[in-house]
Amino acid sequence: MTSQAAAVLDAPQLGTTMRALVKESAAPGAAIQDVPIPEPGPGEILVRVLAASVCGTDVHIERWDPWAQDNFGPPPMTFGHEMAGIVVARGPGATRIALGELVAAETHWVDWTCYQCRTGRAHVCQHMRILGVHVPGSFAQYVVLPEVNAWVSEGLEPEIAALQEPLGNAVFSAFVEEVAGQTAVVTGCGPIGLMSIGVLKMAGARAVYATDINPERLAMAEKMGADLVLDARDDVVGRLRAETDGNGVDIVLEMSGSSAALHQGLAAVTNGGRVSLLGTHAVPATIDLSKEVIFKGLRIYGITGRRLWDTWYRTTALLEEGLDISPIITHRLPLAEYAKAFDLVASGHAGKIVLLPQVEA
Amino acid sequence: MTSQAAAVLDAPQLGTTMRALVKESAAPGAAIQDVPIPEPGPGEILVRVLAASVCGTDVHIERWDPWAQDNFGPPPMTFGHEMAGIVVARGPGATRIALGELVAAETHWVDWTCYQCRTGRAHVCQHMRILGVHVPGSFAQYVVLPEVNAWVSEGLEPEIAALQEPLGNAVFSAFVEEVAGQTAVVTGCGPIGLMSIGVLKMAGARAVYATDINPERLAMAEKMGADLVLDARDDVVGRLRAETDGNGVDIVLEMSGSSAALHQGLAAVTNGGRVSLLGTHAVPATIDLSKEVIFKGLRIYGITGRRLWDTWYRTTALLEEGLDISPIITHRLPLAEYAKAFDLVASGHAGKIVLLPQVEA
Amino acid sequence: MTSQAAAVLDAPQLGTTMRALVKESAAPGAAIQDVPIPEPGPGEILVRVLAASVCGTDVHIERWDPWAQDNFGPPPMTFGHEMAGIVVARGPGATRIALGELVAAETHWVDWTCYQCRTGRAHVCQHMRILGVHVPGSFAQYVVLPEVNAWVSEGLEPEIAALQEPLGNAVFSAFVEEVAGQTAVVTGCGPIGLMSIGVLKMAGARAVYATDINPERLAMAEKMGADLVLDARDDVVGRLRAETDGNGVDIVLEMSGSSAALHQGLAAVTNGGRVSLLGTHAVPATIDLSKEVIFKGLRIYGITGRRLWDTWYRTTALLEEGLDISPIITHRLPLAEYAKAFDLVASGHAGKIVLLPQVEA
Amino acid sequence: MTSQAAAVLDAPQLGTTMRALVKESAAPGAAIQDVPIPEPGPGEILVRVLAASVCGTDVHIERWDPWAQDNFGPPPMTFGHEMAGIVVARGPGATRIALGELVAAETHWVDWTCYQCRTGRAHVCQHMRILGVHVPGSFAQYVVLPEVNAWVSEGLEPEIAALQEPLGNAVFSAFVEEVAGQTAVVTGCGPIGLMSIGVLKMAGARAVYATDINPERLAMAEKMGADLVLDARDDVVGRLRAETDGNGVDIVLEMSGSSAALHQGLAAVTNGGRVSLLGTHAVPATIDLSKEVIFKGLRIYGITGRRLWDTWYRTTALLEEGLDISPIITHRLPLAEYAKAFDLVASGHAGKIVLLPQVEA
Repeated sequence: MTSQAAAVLDAPQLGTTMRALVKESAAPGAAIQDVPIPEPGPGEILVRVLAASVCGTDVHIERWDPWAQDNFGPPPMTFGHEMAGIVVARGPGATRIALGELVAAETHWVDWTCYQCRTGRAHVCQHMRILGVHVPGSFAQYVVLPEVNAWVSEGLEPEIAALQEPLGNAVFSAFVEEVAGQTAVVTGCGPIGLMSIGVLKMAGARAVYATDINPERLAMAEKMGADLVLDARDDVVGRLRAETDGNGVDIVLEMSGSSAALHQGLAAVTNGGRVSLLGTHAVPATIDLSKEVIFKGLRIYGITGRRLWDTWYRTTALLEEGLDISPIITHRLPLAEYAKAFDLVASGHAGKIVLLPQVEA
Repeated sequence: MTSQAAAVLDAPQLGTTMRALVKESAAPGAAIQDVPIPEPGPGEILVRVLAASVCGTDVHIERWDPWAQDNFGPPPMTFGHEMAGIVVARGPGATRIALGELVAAETHWVDWTCYQCRTGRAHVCQHMRILGVHVPGSFAQYVVLPEVNAWVSEGLEPEIAALQEPLGNAVFSAFVEEVAGQTAVVTGCGPIGLMSIGVLKMAGARAVYATDINPERLAMAEKMGADLVLDARDDVVGRLRAETDGNGVDIVLEMSGSSAALHQGLAAVTNGGRVSLLGTHAVPATIDLSKEVIFKGLRIYGITGRRLWDTWYRTTALLEEGLDISPIITHRLPLAEYAKAFDLVASGHAGKIVLLPQVEA
Repeated sequence: MTSQAAAVLDAPQLGTTMRALVKESAAPGAAIQDVPIPEPGPGEILVRVLAASVCGTDVHIERWDPWAQDNFGPPPMTFGHEMAGIVVARGPGATRIALGELVAAETHWVDWTCYQCRTGRAHVCQHMRILGVHVPGSFAQYVVLPEVNAWVSEGLEPEIAALQEPLGNAVFSAFVEEVAGQTAVVTGCGPIGLMSIGVLKMAGARAVYATDINPERLAMAEKMGADLVLDARDDVVGRLRAETDGNGVDIVLEMSGSSAALHQGLAAVTNGGRVSLLGTHAVPATIDLSKEVIFKGLRIYGITGRRLWDTWYRTTALLEEGLDISPIITHRLPLAEYAKAFDLVASGHAGKIVLLPQVEA
Repeated sequence: MTSQAAAVLDAPQLGTTMRALVKESAAPGAAIQDVPIPEPGPGEILVRVLAASVCGTDVHIERWDPWAQDNFGPPPMTFGHEMAGIVVARGPGATRIALGELVAAETHWVDWTCYQCRTGRAHVCQHMRILGVHVPGSFAQYVVLPEVNAWVSEGLEPEIAALQEPLGNAVFSAFVEEVAGQTAVVTGCGPIGLMSIGVLKMAGARAVYATDINPERLAMAEKMGADLVLDARDDVVGRLRAETDGNGVDIVLEMSGSSAALHQGLAAVTNGGRVSLLGTHAVPATIDLSKEVIFKGLRIYGITGRRLWDTWYRTTALLEEGLDISPIITHRLPLAEYAKAFDLVASGHAGKIVLLPQVEA
């Protein structure tokens, strides 16, 4: 932190090294290491990370599954991407956000110049890089962000601010079309599915149904306001038809990445209804397109990331209006307990887990 | 009621005449008269009116203002159009709705064959006729409706069922674009403005502001959930800018028909925002189009009626979800007290007034 | 034809029987039979069929494939549905369309009362019946249509008027979103694919690419205005990327029902682009949803039928503007030569074939 | 041009001064002056101007009308904004566009950080500055542009490239909703109105009608492809109703800024149709909102500028497809003949005039 061009907050407190959770090599595992505190370059800021929540992607990286092998790194590199923290230094030209502000990260670094970025679709930029996947991540005491990727989150609790990133996935999935006065089913009650229940309710959905095979998650779905929760192994389609005067539901948010759930959603949606696909599928799905999609006249939306910045504005607005996503946070752990966190996520016995890089283990 | 083709509910109770509020001649005034109970023709139903709420239009007809002179009748004819009641007889071919059902009226009789009706815009049919304006209305013990215009309203209180028609105006105005996570101002807190406040809140508006010059109406606006109510004679624009970080509001619902309110709305809306115009203007408005509309890149929607039947589905859904519009009903009166009702509406010292044709004065 | 209520054109010429192509039993085959001329009931019209074009569906019915076994009939019943002809008689209440008018058929009989029909989505009515599949069809000298299903086609050649029905499929597929100034690929150059090329060009597409494995069809694609035709067995994706500055195409119209073509389309479309699925798939498709749909942020539209009546208005308008679909008509045959027609369609050595029921073999 | 950080094309040819048309003081008039060649700062480029077309705004500035008095400058400052030219030098960080490329200017400098810029509405940025109005313009041999505002226009004639800016106004006005298969009227055949005729035709409009009171302009409207041109003093509304089966036109593009034309457009548009307002109004318009807008259920769009960059992509695409706007260029003059150019524009006896800064008078 020697650049004279960079403004620095409470410089004396910044040492030269920090704790970070590093993917050390192209193999399963990860480790807490002392690494140099990064320095913000032109247009970048340095953020002291107060909350870093765990995404399923992080577990894939730690486990080193095929997706991680194809996409991460290269190691050694810090990972983690859902985060919020305080701006403590600014590189040259980074003047929009004041030192001391609480910010969260839009985790997708986009190029702003490709066809997609120049036509309102930066979330599918052709040259996307992702925090904690392609560039050093936020499971660390400090992280560098492009200032343009920092979302000022004044007034939010850091752990809630960090969750705006996955909450934005839920908001984007729900708001690709209108919600008010419509029925919806959320298939898959992981954290994003759970948050989308709250989003749908706040946006005036007529009824929100939720499915999963995990009773703990279904219990959380009820806490988030689901009108009815269903075990996905039961006759979900029949029940949803019955609940909707035989019409089927207007909206499907597929949040599980499970083929079985997808087929239930396609069967349960009303003719001419709409389906958002967010849950990523580890294996290809086999779909009877004529029957399940074409003759029903469906609209299917592939959802990735969040709109920059429409979704962020709407997401923050919902939190201001009173959307309470805190029920889905089941664990808050020091960064050093990352292994426990990942095991909990993998087990399905957790909602959202927030790691705290500033807290000693 | 002698047609053999018509099914009749509790026929013994149906006499041959009924009480109705009749516009007798092309002059101010109206009178309760005994008139023949109408008979439903092919595709029509006869409805026993349980609740008939008063619209500003009804006062115009009673007062015989220029609009009424140009549009009503011809007299003598019963007027009134916001209504709910029980189906008591069905003409030939009217088989969809059972005897005994509670129905409300879509008050616009459309031809279903013009360019508008055949392209999803029946609410602006080229050959529109309106209940109680062009055909005999519902300020009466019984009214005939085309079955296609009857909206089954099972489970609602009749007075709430009757209010679905103006509530539909509010829903249509609000839902021409998305609402969730956006700020909105409602200019004009007559009954439809008041209902639109509840609609916006239920649909997840970030904040709903309301303006009027009548303190009684502003008090009702607060009951309907407005986050902030403003006297329209104060610095509304400055205050709304301040409330929205200087951006202006995303959504304007102009419900007053006042030029002054319109200009406030156009000044308060954010660049690229949207404005719904529902309040009818008695005199032309003078608008600086370049400054107020073009350079701001606004979208302005002229709103009349309700979408058949998208709006009705959404309207009913909001009521099912718990939208409570009962606070705006300030008076419930026997039909015979129509003069008192009209005076109250004209005075501004009333919210919605429901006339009860089955109740003896 | 004895109903006194029905108006009749040139009654003397109407005999009591007519030639019709009848599916006689639940087995492959069909036969020309003399059957009674049907009588139009209330709201129905009788049409003298001047042109009846052959759809792939007709071949499925004749061949009695599994789809036909599940959906047709029951036999014996006349089939055929793409048609145009002259109104020669009207049942009671059918007064909108004059005797002598040329009409084409919207082939989907919808109930007008279900959730879909009442919310602008009649093309996916829950109780759809289809001309020539569920009710007697138009491979006959006369056919009865509900008057509401007849589209007045004044000024068109009967064979072109008959083709408005499949042309409407093409128009609907193309116009679910804007076209002007965008690049598009049509995968599959059967008759609807070919027509969609003309539609896209007329609507200002920047470039239209077309793929097929049949050189005769690719030659017709060029006649319809395709800027570039590609053998689907070549490197379609690479070529389309190269043609679009590496971005991929904006619009995919999947008209083949082939999984291979679908995958090419999903690979060739630009991130955030849109895909219309119209070609029906005989077998389920296996799709890598994460890679092919979700991470690309695609919008996928299942297309069936045509919007009533938005699509018809636009379809007729394009023909008036000069859209020329006649190059795809490769054969005009008397009805009696149906077997030759079906063989030609099945062989792929034909574009559109028009059967002429009034022409003696 | 001494910055070592800047790349420079053919540096020897760049002197230190250039000819420019300068608004010298806050009074009518302007003059050709020798002024220093500007130097591109960080993120900026220097462009040798090959074509600079004249906009009505330029005449307002020269004449020093009230709008100019309120908005321009301050003087002395070069004006002019529609331009195309060759990149001859790049400031630090401007690396996207190569030296020697032909570029046109998006003339609106936006801040990229306000609410509008961050939600896909940069064309109504809250802190807009305009080339030639708030910053030195392009009626000069050289002009500095932010690199982000330069649109690479390879393959276009410079004069056509310069016209992409106003053509973008036409494209944005036309494409706020779909065009294909719809009828449209353009009220006002100045250059943008004329270009919009070509745009509508290319996008598949069913018919394009054009009105003006200037026969020279109506003649150019026919050259641009209008199906019917009408003197605005005749019965435009009656004629347009007659042309559209009594329905009225689907689309109105109001390009005149005249109240009379606006009222004709509002009367001629079909119920539920849409109106784009682009022509700026020097005086407020008096509108009977109830009759002209609300009861017709219209959608009115205030149009300013162009979408960054959706409109530019579509605009370039239309030119590539063959849209020919050259018929509207009536004069090509050396920069020194600016006075003649402005007089011609003011007289109405010109289409578009292109000034040529590199050509000696």
